Amino acid sequence: MIRAMPDDDTTGPGPRRRRGPYAKSAERRREIVEAALHEFSENGFRGATMKAITERIGVTQPLIYSYFSSKEELLTAVLELRDDRGFDISPLDPSRPVESVRALVELMRHNEAHPGIVALHCAIAGEAVTSGHPAHDSFRRRYVDARTRIGAILEACREAGRLREGVDPQRAARIVVAAMDGLQTQWILEPEVEHLGDEFEAFMRTLVDF
Amino acid sequence: MIRAMPDDDTTGPGPRRRRGPYAKSAERRREIVEAALHEFSENGFRGATMKAITERIGVTQPLIYSYFSSKEELLTAVLELRDDRGFDISPLDPSRPVESVRALVELMRHNEAHPGIVALHCAIAGEAVTSGHPAHDSFRRRYVDARTRIGAILEACREAGRLREGVDPQRAARIVVAAMDGLQTQWILEPEVEHLGDEFEAFMRTLVDF
Repeated sequence: MIRAMPDDDTTGPGPRRRRGPYAKSAERRREIVEAALHEFSENGFRGATMKAITERIGVTQPLIYSYFSSKEELLTAVLELRDDRGFDISPLDPSRPVESVRALVELMRHNEAHPGIVALHCAIAGEAVTSGHPAHDSFRRRYVDARTRIGAILEACREAGRLREGVDPQRAARIVVAAMDGLQTQWILEPEVEHLGDEFEAFMRTLVDF
Repeated sequence: MIRAMPDDDTTGPGPRRRRGPYAKSAERRREIVEAALHEFSENGFRGATMKAITERIGVTQPLIYSYFSSKEELLTAVLELRDDRGFDISPLDPSRPVESVRALVELMRHNEAHPGIVALHCAIAGEAVTSGHPAHDSFRRRYVDARTRIGAILEACREAGRLREGVDPQRAARIVVAAMDGLQTQWILEPEVEHLGDEFEAFMRTLVDF
């Protein structure tokens, strides 16, 4: 059997008929994504190669291409895995605004323990600004989602009398998202920025009483 | 004459004996950097190719390689040109703190008129977090420099009685740098974020009376 290895088809997650039986296939897929996560974390997206990923788990390149048609598609799977592990902000709940602000700070502390994942996020978010990038749409959705959720939480903080005077919840939400991104970039680049969680917590305390 | 085209030598800017007479060489070099600036702005760093850059100015690839040994090295020159055009924060002066805050806001308005350059900055800052990236050291220096300068300006604002109560100048400086980066990323990714300059100005007014 000759396997197709399309380089251009990175648009959709559609079912792949060339996959094997589901259970084994899912397990192998997960193994590949784990290897890619480590490779991307250590070498960035640009520095990573499909070859290096295969070598981590001792499989052939055609096997990887039977699951993921490109490095970009593999990246999407890596970011999904990351979210599954609690790096996402989706558990935040406007009906519990103060707890949600605390959870956001805890998220940054969690990230502090995972510098490789932080570097991965910075690198991909940066690249994804170009409209042709395969992660462009998913990152756009992530940003809109993060800003909307954090905006709702800050609105709820205001209703609970916990927002500092003069803080505009929607504008502050943009700065909170920016601070999360920007502090992570600084933390990776500058050894002088010691504690991501502490810096972010101090900033959040200028906005919210929590 | 056979020209060497080293792909690995991206470490140093040392003198290139293969350059022609200085004046003509400098003019040609500038033309290449201009073409690269446009190519990087439209297609990002990853999407750009040396071939596309040569096609913009109708020269051969060996010619470009006689000036820049790699795309990464060309990028460094593009970022220097960007700074020369006023995208840098180096004119900020702690002896005139309020004017410097206004200048920082004007810088963001200036960036708003140059989305391609903003996208370029986001993409390269993101990639530069990985330690092997050719822009790693220069971006690290940029970040330290920006944080230090803005910290000094906020300290001076405090001495002038212009800093809002409870704002810690050094911690706020990190958030200001983060806000500049993060707002630019959001502005590129989200059409809902309309005015970079207005968003940044509103944020700065939560820190400083200017």
